[in-house]
Amino acid sequence: MPPEDGSAPLPKLTVIAREAGVSVATVSKALNGRSDVSSRTRRLINEVLERRGHRPRPRPRRGTMVDVVVPGMGSPYAMAVLGGVEDAAWRLGVDLVVSAVADRTRNGRPPPAWLDRIGARDSAGVLLVRTSPTAAQRAWLADHGIPAVIIDPRRDAPPGVPVVASANRAAGRAATAHLIGLGHERIAIVTGRPGVPCAVERLDGYREAMATAGLPVDPGWETCGSFQSEPARQATVAMFGALPVPPTAVFACSDAMAVGVFQALAELGLRVPGDVSVIGFDDSVAAVHVTPALTTVRQPWPELGAAALAALLSGDPPVRAELPTGIVVRHSTAPA
Amino acid sequence: MPPEDGSAPLPKLTVIAREAGVSVATVSKALNGRSDVSSRTRRLINEVLERRGHRPRPRPRRGTMVDVVVPGMGSPYAMAVLGGVEDAAWRLGVDLVVSAVADRTRNGRPPPAWLDRIGARDSAGVLLVRTSPTAAQRAWLADHGIPAVIIDPRRDAPPGVPVVASANRAAGRAATAHLIGLGHERIAIVTGRPGVPCAVERLDGYREAMATAGLPVDPGWETCGSFQSEPARQATVAMFGALPVPPTAVFACSDAMAVGVFQALAELGLRVPGDVSVIGFDDSVAAVHVTPALTTVRQPWPELGAAALAALLSGDPPVRAELPTGIVVRHSTAPA
Repeated sequence: MPPEDGSAPLPKLTVIAREAGVSVATVSKALNGRSDVSSRTRRLINEVLERRGHRPRPRPRRGTMVDVVVPGMGSPYAMAVLGGVEDAAWRLGVDLVVSAVADRTRNGRPPPAWLDRIGARDSAGVLLVRTSPTAAQRAWLADHGIPAVIIDPRRDAPPGVPVVASANRAAGRAATAHLIGLGHERIAIVTGRPGVPCAVERLDGYREAMATAGLPVDPGWETCGSFQSEPARQATVAMFGALPVPPTAVFACSDAMAVGVFQALAELGLRVPGDVSVIGFDDSVAAVHVTPALTTVRQPWPELGAAALAALLSGDPPVRAELPTGIVVRHSTAPA
Repeated sequence: MPPEDGSAPLPKLTVIAREAGVSVATVSKALNGRSDVSSRTRRLINEVLERRGHRPRPRPRRGTMVDVVVPGMGSPYAMAVLGGVEDAAWRLGVDLVVSAVADRTRNGRPPPAWLDRIGARDSAGVLLVRTSPTAAQRAWLADHGIPAVIIDPRRDAPPGVPVVASANRAAGRAATAHLIGLGHERIAIVTGRPGVPCAVERLDGYREAMATAGLPVDPGWETCGSFQSEPARQATVAMFGALPVPPTAVFACSDAMAVGVFQALAELGLRVPGDVSVIGFDDSVAAVHVTPALTTVRQPWPELGAAALAALLSGDPPVRAELPTGIVVRHSTAPA
């Protein structure tokens, strides 16, 4: 007697294996939802089941559990995002399973075992904070109908995975416009790593603001600090040393790099903001620990987390959502 | 026919209700594992079931999911603990469900709805970071056989709930001994909130170290900074103003309070460490941001998290486990 839903019984594994042209072990793995089966093999097996009238019973979806993957618990930005996700999840009655990946794989992406664990617990969806699934992981998630959203991607977003991020280009324009509004015309920029989307977008925003104001942009005013303090210090010392007329303002594309710029300017005997204004990006704790307190761009970390969870659970997330930033004016910027 | 396990079938709810002397609604709630049923009522109902030969089937225990409750994602200490838990959990194949409670209840304890969610997902155990279950929550967890461990408690540990914490008393001795070893004899202490166990233990350690060294302790050298920067600043200014002969060293029982002590000493025209040595507690990011960099006590946050998870899953956790701290010597302490 066929089951109540009108589906034919599951054919013998040997039959499925023969007709799909794969081994019995592979069929077994595929039926158990294991991650080490290719999409193509999975499709071949599903075609056999369909031909024989067997409809696999949909796996029960808890719907109350969402996975959040962060690089590590040591990143205050990732934790601020997680705080926003957690708060929204609590209100929605969703439980968060949190895992960290940074130190487990060389490429900073989730390790292979991660998928088996997600499959075992029937995750309703996956939020990836500053990390991305590999192509194989994306295919597996798609095969299993598990949606994913990336928050603040560190590399170009893979096709088909929605992204939630700060409006980095607009923020780059706003930070530069803040300096222009104070009368600065020779404005340098210390950028993040070239391959990272937000670094490119902030640089684009800087160039657009300069162009809009009719100010020339000197290639010698653009230098790379790789998002970190010490490289930013070195790059700033080198940049000022190479310029016949030094800039009167610097846009550091992260607060960590602003700390390096502060150190470089102190070494050069230049005062902040008396000789050089400095604006950062992030509004981290360092922004209030440094002297003078840093004017910076505030990123909406908790809001990014909440928006990403809402997008994930909506069933139809937009390909890209951008949230507005704000400028926090403190004491490191002054009229030219 | 009775079920295979020899248990009699579940009696009618009306029968259970009459014999237990409670309402049908209450019986229904109790059988569904809801949290708003008292231990006493639960016991009365269980007695009826036992008399009638019905053995409730044990609820399936996933055993692969542990709850972690933190005050909020904004606390770097709680996040460092969480990092240690996560790392150990990954190696053990355990998934972590993380929730934050600080802003949801006035008393900083998990809200009532939290228990229903834990019950629904068959949590294998609960780790509470810097928060404690209420008496009702403890009873519910015990009734359901869900173990709990508290990490770094902010109040006296409730009876029967194991605790994992830093060896705060020994750390208080070590911090004071560091100052004594540098030749200081007039050593003041800025303590945390009196009701918090670790604040009391660090003060005890300070007094023990002074006594061991044969140094007198002046009650005027002990002041309360409530673990926060601004109260510590005010308390330090008041303490130095009231003493005819000022101390040459201060033990601030948290790095946040050490920042307040730095500010107070600057206001008083005293240099660190030239006039006054300062040692903190925690080894937070502030310790390296301040000038001079702060000598402080390092708390083993990730290790506390890993040890607590191991204790939770051991099935027989020790009532209290203490982990050793270390002193990180930087530039805020010098010979008297």
